[in-house]
Amino acid sequence: MAGAGQKDRALRERAAAVIPGGMFGHQATGMLPDDYPQFFSRAKGAHLWDADGNRLLDFMCAYGPNLMGYGHETIDAAYIAQMQVGDTLTGPTEKIVELAEALTAMVTHADWAIFCKNGTDATTMALVTARAHTRRKTVIRARGAYHGAAPWCVPRPAGTIDTDRAHQILCDYNDIASLEAAVAEAGDDLAAIFAAPFRHDAFIDQAAPDPAYARRCRELCDQTGALLVVDEVRAGLRLTTDCSWSLIGVQPDLSSWGKCLANGHPLSVLLGNDKSRKAASAIYVTGSFWYQAAPMAAALETLKIARETPYLAHLDALGTRLREGLEARASAAGFGLRCTGPVQMPLFLFDDDPDLRKGFCWSSQMLARGVYVHPWHNMFLCTAMTEADIDMALDAAEQSFAVLKREGPTLEPVAKMAFLVASGQR
Amino acid sequence: MAGAGQKDRALRERAAAVIPGGMFGHQATGMLPDDYPQFFSRAKGAHLWDADGNRLLDFMCAYGPNLMGYGHETIDAAYIAQMQVGDTLTGPTEKIVELAEALTAMVTHADWAIFCKNGTDATTMALVTARAHTRRKTVIRARGAYHGAAPWCVPRPAGTIDTDRAHQILCDYNDIASLEAAVAEAGDDLAAIFAAPFRHDAFIDQAAPDPAYARRCRELCDQTGALLVVDEVRAGLRLTTDCSWSLIGVQPDLSSWGKCLANGHPLSVLLGNDKSRKAASAIYVTGSFWYQAAPMAAALETLKIARETPYLAHLDALGTRLREGLEARASAAGFGLRCTGPVQMPLFLFDDDPDLRKGFCWSSQMLARGVYVHPWHNMFLCTAMTEADIDMALDAAEQSFAVLKREGPTLEPVAKMAFLVASGQR
Repeated sequence: MAGAGQKDRALRERAAAVIPGGMFGHQATGMLPDDYPQFFSRAKGAHLWDADGNRLLDFMCAYGPNLMGYGHETIDAAYIAQMQVGDTLTGPTEKIVELAEALTAMVTHADWAIFCKNGTDATTMALVTARAHTRRKTVIRARGAYHGAAPWCVPRPAGTIDTDRAHQILCDYNDIASLEAAVAEAGDDLAAIFAAPFRHDAFIDQAAPDPAYARRCRELCDQTGALLVVDEVRAGLRLTTDCSWSLIGVQPDLSSWGKCLANGHPLSVLLGNDKSRKAASAIYVTGSFWYQAAPMAAALETLKIARETPYLAHLDALGTRLREGLEARASAAGFGLRCTGPVQMPLFLFDDDPDLRKGFCWSSQMLARGVYVHPWHNMFLCTAMTEADIDMALDAAEQSFAVLKREGPTLEPVAKMAFLVASGQR
Repeated sequence: MAGAGQKDRALRERAAAVIPGGMFGHQATGMLPDDYPQFFSRAKGAHLWDADGNRLLDFMCAYGPNLMGYGHETIDAAYIAQMQVGDTLTGPTEKIVELAEALTAMVTHADWAIFCKNGTDATTMALVTARAHTRRKTVIRARGAYHGAAPWCVPRPAGTIDTDRAHQILCDYNDIASLEAAVAEAGDDLAAIFAAPFRHDAFIDQAAPDPAYARRCRELCDQTGALLVVDEVRAGLRLTTDCSWSLIGVQPDLSSWGKCLANGHPLSVLLGNDKSRKAASAIYVTGSFWYQAAPMAAALETLKIARETPYLAHLDALGTRLREGLEARASAAGFGLRCTGPVQMPLFLFDDDPDLRKGFCWSSQMLARGVYVHPWHNMFLCTAMTEADIDMALDAAEQSFAVLKREGPTLEPVAKMAFLVASGQR
């Protein structure tokens, strides 16, 4: 059986001594079922192996960075070749120019690029660029939307202070009235409207962007002189090679990208149009590794594959097969399973499951059958997955639904998810 | 002649179209002499090659990350081996535990580690940890000290707003009276005192930490319950393998590390003692690539070399040879050259040179002779340098002093440094 085996438990014990809480951030497993492994030992293509050697079909894809498959041969070869020539140097190499050219050619709204390491670097740079461009302070973002882990946007506020989030107004995603109210509240001080490409908040159903909402964001920015920021860090390159809102005919002024841009090698970027080029050259943003050439070489190879292969159609076909197969099997077993979001980035939530006890049970059963799914965070497909992988996952799902049906009436409450019920989030 | 050759100029032209201002951050060459190259093509050991193929003995070492030599064979082999097994995954590997164990064993004050990518991530995490631990807001830092490029600390404020820097008090480095006044001003709200290991601000002489000042920082933190943060991002591993203030008998509560921790591979870390372990487990900090195993494997190899070789003595001998040789040659040529800071991280400033025209002329002459020095930022030595390299640099220096002596009386003002004179910084 997969899950927290002996080696995983031994590593957790050692980690508890030298890492606060045993692990930090989004890859801490404290909010996952207890049998989920905390540590992994290797990965290839669509699969990863936990510390105890259990092979898992991985529907998290490193929370996004794995787009073209783990250990992709030509991408990693490009990384290594550039590393051996020159990587972190006293200045950039020509790769930074080549990659900025490739991105501005690929993304409709983009005239320029500034490279960084974290997705949070790119979203924070968008904030600073918009404030520098407009010489105003107020930004609007959607309640519950994740734009990074810096004090101005982090969802769990311990250690941050009120002033970190000063001059921000929250609205509700896809709710034009709340957006308009926020803009009215900002008055003549609106610097930017931030938007996720679609609603991909944790714990709740995902939602496609309402084209009317997206257009209204654009109109309100045009009317006020504020900049429209679309945060592509999570979704970028999975729905299209352009900015995601291109699919609904809306171009932002700034877009932040990261995660799978170099297929798991550390790189993120802020793209912008000419409107804010001057402001972007006036701000001071930098990092020790932001000019690193090897991740840029890997990104160039990733983008080449994106341009030259029908990877998007492949992801769409896999995702559709997964969703349709799951819905049919859930329904046959008598469960209401909501598969929301784009099929390439799905989230599965059970009906009538406020503390996720059904979701936890079903996910653990999937894990035991070699399929790593997440019970409350959107997942990610990668191009290394095959129809056979999806069918294997669907077989596992069918068996897991059967176990859930048998055990459902006796499932214990999930104590670690009680906060969800208490907070009224579900 | 080295400098901005034809290929460099062509790349600058392309960069100007797709990167705001042609380049961003600390590796933009706008504030360097005009003949300094913006782009590089490769590196090995102590040398790098600019885009036009000029070979340069590099005293910037990528602004710090190159400690053991560019393209270090066993460090890069460790990186590649781990990359091929598993790098950015759905969770961490055992490398994160091994590295946290190695760092807490090496650094006296450290009981725990949280890994990240930028130096700024680590200093920001220190800020948030201290505020979470103390449930207070105010932090004290030294005027002019660089602790990163986030809105709370960035030295050039374009695009940031007043609230980004709320609840901060500035003092003067090594000035106990100003430190005590800042602590008094903080009253019962002091969360942390930030300190650089030594004064390594740009444009001015570096200064060793006054042990009495360091001890007073510690005492005031102990009296108030605030945390003492030593920001080792720039200096870490170059003066000692412990925290730099260990050399003067003072242990911080938190220390931030980055740059050369993995010899140029992207990794930084916040280390802390048990006092703030609970707070550090309560804050939410994360990044897409923070669990990356390959840089951790490279860091383990870097630390192994640090433990097992006399690299510190080698750096000290090289640095002493450089400083003594330079001072003798400057003096023989009739120049007052102030070589300040630790010899492993030197800064050279000419007497009577308010707009750096002497420094710019001499640095350009060094560049033309194959030696890359920086006219106003501290430099870095690496272990791949040899006595022969230092002697070659000293020969170049002697010739460059001769040119400066000849051309000094007719040097033009350095327009791009006029701000220094205007601001009274020099």
